[in-house]
Amino acid sequence: MTSTDRALGLTKTAELSADLRQMIDTGTLSLGERLPSVRELARVRRLSVTTVVQAYRELEALDVVEARLRSGYYVKFDSRNAIRSTPRRRLTPAPAGLQDYYDLMPELLAEAGREGRVLRLGVASLEGDLLPQKVLAQLTRKVLRTRGARLLGYADPIGLEALRKRIARLVIEHGISISADDIVVTSGCQEALSIALLCLCRPGDVVAVQSPCYPGVLKAMQVMGLRAVEVPTIPAGLDLDALEAAIRKNKVRACYVMPNCANPTGLIYSEDTKRGLCKLAAQYDLPVIEDSANADLHFGFSPLSALKHYDAGGLVLYCASFSKTVAPAFRVGWLIAGRFARQAEQLKYALSIGVPLLQQVVIERFIAEGGYRRSVSHARPVLAATMSQLLRCVEEGFPAGTDWHRPYGGMCAWIRLPPAVDGERLRRQALDVGVSIAPGRMFSPFGVYRNHIRLGWGGKWTDRAATGTLAVGSIARSLSGEKRPGVASP
Amino acid sequence: MTSTDRALGLTKTAELSADLRQMIDTGTLSLGERLPSVRELARVRRLSVTTVVQAYRELEALDVVEARLRSGYYVKFDSRNAIRSTPRRRLTPAPAGLQDYYDLMPELLAEAGREGRVLRLGVASLEGDLLPQKVLAQLTRKVLRTRGARLLGYADPIGLEALRKRIARLVIEHGISISADDIVVTSGCQEALSIALLCLCRPGDVVAVQSPCYPGVLKAMQVMGLRAVEVPTIPAGLDLDALEAAIRKNKVRACYVMPNCANPTGLIYSEDTKRGLCKLAAQYDLPVIEDSANADLHFGFSPLSALKHYDAGGLVLYCASFSKTVAPAFRVGWLIAGRFARQAEQLKYALSIGVPLLQQVVIERFIAEGGYRRSVSHARPVLAATMSQLLRCVEEGFPAGTDWHRPYGGMCAWIRLPPAVDGERLRRQALDVGVSIAPGRMFSPFGVYRNHIRLGWGGKWTDRAATGTLAVGSIARSLSGEKRPGVASP
Repeated sequence: MTSTDRALGLTKTAELSADLRQMIDTGTLSLGERLPSVRELARVRRLSVTTVVQAYRELEALDVVEARLRSGYYVKFDSRNAIRSTPRRRLTPAPAGLQDYYDLMPELLAEAGREGRVLRLGVASLEGDLLPQKVLAQLTRKVLRTRGARLLGYADPIGLEALRKRIARLVIEHGISISADDIVVTSGCQEALSIALLCLCRPGDVVAVQSPCYPGVLKAMQVMGLRAVEVPTIPAGLDLDALEAAIRKNKVRACYVMPNCANPTGLIYSEDTKRGLCKLAAQYDLPVIEDSANADLHFGFSPLSALKHYDAGGLVLYCASFSKTVAPAFRVGWLIAGRFARQAEQLKYALSIGVPLLQQVVIERFIAEGGYRRSVSHARPVLAATMSQLLRCVEEGFPAGTDWHRPYGGMCAWIRLPPAVDGERLRRQALDVGVSIAPGRMFSPFGVYRNHIRLGWGGKWTDRAATGTLAVGSIARSLSGEKRPGVASP
Repeated sequence: MTSTDRALGLTKTAELSADLRQMIDTGTLSLGERLPSVRELARVRRLSVTTVVQAYRELEALDVVEARLRSGYYVKFDSRNAIRSTPRRRLTPAPAGLQDYYDLMPELLAEAGREGRVLRLGVASLEGDLLPQKVLAQLTRKVLRTRGARLLGYADPIGLEALRKRIARLVIEHGISISADDIVVTSGCQEALSIALLCLCRPGDVVAVQSPCYPGVLKAMQVMGLRAVEVPTIPAGLDLDALEAAIRKNKVRACYVMPNCANPTGLIYSEDTKRGLCKLAAQYDLPVIEDSANADLHFGFSPLSALKHYDAGGLVLYCASFSKTVAPAFRVGWLIAGRFARQAEQLKYALSIGVPLLQQVVIERFIAEGGYRRSVSHARPVLAATMSQLLRCVEEGFPAGTDWHRPYGGMCAWIRLPPAVDGERLRRQALDVGVSIAPGRMFSPFGVYRNHIRLGWGGKWTDRAATGTLAVGSIARSLSGEKRPGVASP
């Protein structure tokens, strides 16, 4: 069995667990309910028992079901706390420019760069021992010793060949079969996204973005003078009907999505949604930018199929990086641009010549020596546990009427507060007690998520993180009009 | 005396040596002629004797005059070998798109990245012991030991504050007074240029570029869909009359120049040209992108005044980097964007979030510990000597009718061959004997320099470099129709 076969085989598990997740998210299977027995489900779905067991274990890792001894699997997630879909009425009906788009991320990052006593729940990056700092430092020293001067000179603009080969092998597990020459190494996922946008768009062009949306891509669209139209999120991933309506109504030049472990929602598209999106793309000849920055931080153990796995025509531009999984400041990412590969190469060279060789060699060695697999395998269950704890604090400490998407990977949760709570105001007041959070407005090109926030923590859950989260909840309760008991600063 | 005063004081020397350089370049002072005595020139120009002595020593360092014991200074440069100006008739009269622009640089860089036996005279980068590899490797190890995990997380997108402060102090010597907050740290000079262009231009906009021109900026303009109009090079730097005519005739949105140690010519603008260009910029409200990548590789010892020194209105966007002076693959540069600073910050974040922290910290330490000054002071005379040797080989081995600009800094010489010699063909044939060179076409948006090449060498001159240069000359002679004696491969 080749790795590709293995990856394709795994989509059966992924497909089943996605279906079950969706049933849980939408309350079709509700809190405390027993899931069908393994044998029964295997019979009905014509799947092997192994596949069903895998899918159930996966849901257990996602912390939405629990196994009870000799009794079976039970739903653990209360769907009454789930945001169902982005209300369409919230979204701007026609494409518009991003002149007024407001992005706080540079400020949040600048805060993260400074040393201080702010608890950073607003930035999604690995913390503490989840950062493989010792191994990376050792490897860097070793590489400096053995390669010396060759690390200082100019190199191939599209990236170190050995690293591109490693990446080509990594993405096989997401069902992507390409050669090293189809990859451009970039300065993180952000540069991959910028290059993808510059490949596809001219100022004034319309890009359909999933809403809520990763702020970095909105910022790139803003500085490039692009216009946006928002497509709602639904439990299955993306509202494809709304996307198709937008395509029919407007001249949409490209679409931006994050199908696996989205930022900020943590959602994963169902396989049907992935297939459907690729079908739409082919039908309307619409390039789709797939942001895969978080896919390897899936809380489950089975690899996720990429949108690009279903892309026959080279219309998907796959963007990813090691920033979320290894080290943000390494700034190593990559772009698989499909039929736009040649343009992407030229853009990479034109924008910044190339990525520093040192980091490329270190990451290549890190993957080669098994460090990447180990590091990610170590981080996933920790992040999953942290997310459960974080959401427990939200459940306990936030005002009534607060709800969220249950994240299935990554470091963030997307929280909707009662309408009276302004996310900005919450941020400012939280900062006063030493906690930094990301206000919801920045996740929409038109700032529609006024009463939302994104909370995240990229390490082991700590008392300080809990105290901080509860402090934010307490302020939110007070802003919502609930009586606010005294809560200590974190 | 503050550093700024010192920098301003030094412009007198710079001004005088620029005037003399120009007289030598144009043959007003010709080969073998004696320069005026120091006292006489001091009296006539109302300058101190020290200033004149400094200027003469500078010209000696530039290898265009020589001191003869108890006799004075004599011109050493044969201006009959000098390209005077870019013939205006060669240049396209109206702005045009860069659809057909042909840039070989990615290929040249890819060649440079591969290990092999090609002698790389086509890429301008430091070689051998001019790369401070040991010191950088030591510093990197030290920084890894002392800062560890803090190097892996996200940081301030505009760059490490400590590094920005160092840079603010470095540029004082070019007569630029700014604060650290006016600086954006970029992924090399190339990203600074891209950001500057994206700040100023929309697709279809016209940029006036000096011709011959650094290929990287042309590539960036090409991928951004900009149009170009060429402005000729003259011994004083830039043909300002031609620039003004272009501005009056077309809607020029920005201007790109390299006033100090230009790539590919190695020329330095006269102070009058710098002042005049800033005056034109103010008069027409025209932003000017100043590429200062090579300014610290001046063959003379006195710092060069930046164009930005004369910029009162914030119209000059100053781009520079440590790629040419320290290490290409470190990818650390900076942009001082004047009145466009805010936009530049946003673009930097939107394009690639930030520069890797490790390199920023290492470069900051390198400057702090005096390594930068030492490294550059060590490199300059070596590069100056190498250039003299390289040009000697060109003089000896190239066909009759070959001429060039005498470079005053950097690693490159711009060579014009007899009309019969095609630079492309020369490149291909040179590569067959193991020498890589840069064909002239890529230094014009419209490929007008068919019979030109750029030759460069960024280290100590070696027998191999000499043999390689002579081999190129021999092929050129054969292409020009001259009889070709047997020359060994390098």
